[in-house]
Amino acid sequence: MAGELLGDTVLVRDEAEASQIYNKGFYGYPMSGGCLELDLMEATYLLECGRLEVKESGESVLLSRLTLRAAETIKDFEVSYIVYRDLRQRGYVVKAHAGDFNFRVFPRGGTPTSSPTRYWVLALSERSLFDLKGFMDQMEQAERTRKTLLLAVVDEEGDITYYQASKAFPEGWESDAPGGLTSGVFIEHRVMIFDQDEAERVHKNGFFGKMIGSTLQLSLIETAYLQEHGLIELRSAASGRKISPVGFARRASRLQPDFQLRLRVYTDLREKGLVVKTGFKYGCHFRVYERDPEKIHARFLVHAVPSDYSTIWPEISRAVRLAHGVRKEILFGMVGEKVDYLRLRRVRP
Amino acid sequence: MAGELLGDTVLVRDEAEASQIYNKGFYGYPMSGGCLELDLMEATYLLECGRLEVKESGESVLLSRLTLRAAETIKDFEVSYIVYRDLRQRGYVVKAHAGDFNFRVFPRGGTPTSSPTRYWVLALSERSLFDLKGFMDQMEQAERTRKTLLLAVVDEEGDITYYQASKAFPEGWESDAPGGLTSGVFIEHRVMIFDQDEAERVHKNGFFGKMIGSTLQLSLIETAYLQEHGLIELRSAASGRKISPVGFARRASRLQPDFQLRLRVYTDLREKGLVVKTGFKYGCHFRVYERDPEKIHARFLVHAVPSDYSTIWPEISRAVRLAHGVRKEILFGMVGEKVDYLRLRRVRP
Repeated sequence: MAGELLGDTVLVRDEAEASQIYNKGFYGYPMSGGCLELDLMEATYLLECGRLEVKESGESVLLSRLTLRAAETIKDFEVSYIVYRDLRQRGYVVKAHAGDFNFRVFPRGGTPTSSPTRYWVLALSERSLFDLKGFMDQMEQAERTRKTLLLAVVDEEGDITYYQASKAFPEGWESDAPGGLTSGVFIEHRVMIFDQDEAERVHKNGFFGKMIGSTLQLSLIETAYLQEHGLIELRSAASGRKISPVGFARRASRLQPDFQLRLRVYTDLREKGLVVKTGFKYGCHFRVYERDPEKIHARFLVHAVPSDYSTIWPEISRAVRLAHGVRKEILFGMVGEKVDYLRLRRVRP
Repeated sequence: MAGELLGDTVLVRDEAEASQIYNKGFYGYPMSGGCLELDLMEATYLLECGRLEVKESGESVLLSRLTLRAAETIKDFEVSYIVYRDLRQRGYVVKAHAGDFNFRVFPRGGTPTSSPTRYWVLALSERSLFDLKGFMDQMEQAERTRKTLLLAVVDEEGDITYYQASKAFPEGWESDAPGGLTSGVFIEHRVMIFDQDEAERVHKNGFFGKMIGSTLQLSLIETAYLQEHGLIELRSAASGRKISPVGFARRASRLQPDFQLRLRVYTDLREKGLVVKTGFKYGCHFRVYERDPEKIHARFLVHAVPSDYSTIWPEISRAVRLAHGVRKEILFGMVGEKVDYLRLRRVRP
């Protein structure tokens, strides 16, 4: 097989060769007259596999030279090629994508002429930023046309981790809330309910706080939630004076700068009937139960982020890995006008 | 049992009561005349357990009142008390510590009169900073007197995670290194060795890089290491010009701002005979093998940090949890004049 390197394409002129390359793997773009045009990604791969010879002005082009040419022509070629190569080796038909994505991938056994695209693939370097907003736009674009968005993140050594992204709609079955008003004392970082009956009532209805002997200890966020719902009256341990919801929120925000952000997600999850506890042990904001946390394991780990959040990919990789390791789902709770949830899962395509 | 609240202590005057409290759990500090002085931590706990009644000016003091008094007197009482209470309930004898730590803890079954201290315990809020330098000083102080330093980190809900800290001395068995000089091409984020024999030689001796077909792909850090050891000559893919070690380090640092820091740790580990690969999938800098990475699992996850590193505790919690979940040890490689390694493990005391 021989193709001719012409600028940023390789042209296979021989009709028999062209149709053989196209029919076995759907490489290239058939042209009038039976020619086949290969893009440099395809040509590099076919050359690497020994399925194609490439010539320029009559001389053979080495793999190293074609790679360098492709790197000059295609943006982030090096990262894209690693992903292209991997998907091809897994048996998928992969074609370049004209829009915001790198590749269109067809279902296993499917072809560009017989099947709709299954995945839209973004090839990303681990050094690129994880930009939540841009990413959500792309996901919505994919979901509108019923494609699955696959993120192929290439690490420093060329290993690929695939992430599948989707929106999540967590929902729980707990509707209990402590009925009446109770009173608590704000000490340093926590709130205590010293009256044992009150303590037990608040703890049992909605699983708020933690019993320490006969005393119930509430976290800042639980307290803020109860206070906003008119269920707790607070006094300062130091001064004995009443603390208003505004005053409490101010103090809590001093202790925890992202308090308001967390509270938005906490409140949203609580209102969806979920039981929400701290995710400290997992290095995220919340662990979330669909019902009684004493009877079941937490299903979700949730991290509250602003809707314009961006971070480095190793952060995301770590969060997903950790959740996977403890058999929970990681959700990013994006706080905008409302709270939306993004689920990221590691997958093997 | 009755004790009298006097400022920041509770005094048990009755000799029989005093000795009973002291002998069962070594609470308090025996005074001349058979009295026993309890600190407010001890008195609060004994009151909570119903083993002590506390009076002030003849009137009974409620648990809520004693707690508030203790919170006024003892710094971070609320966090310390949660840890004190937990260790006591696990059956340990716990005494206040005069120096930089919160508690001295005796071995199980041991007493202040019969046994040396086993643990020095620091009670920390998850909201406190993890300050590596201060922490190393405390660890060395503990190790000099053969105590184990235990960090008790209290989360928002009052749950405690115990961490044991120690110095680590990782050592490997790989002494191979690619013998002669080779040449590579710098493309975007990676370096390629296109000559197949050369590629295989570099890959096999020391497990550098990753074979992509017949091409070896080296990471930036591997390349810098090989270049510093005079084992690779580099050319730019774009210009074809030679790249000096200084020029390469400058480019790599642009792509990865903490490149020099990582390289210090990479080099130190390589020189200790370990095989070092990226830890991207685990959200840390390196995964480290004691020998052939194709035959064994990585033993360590290593994160390179400057020696004056500080971060928030949830970061640390997450790193330790993740390493634990994949059965590896997490080490922090602290880059100062030399590289020291700190190991953090979750323990149950």
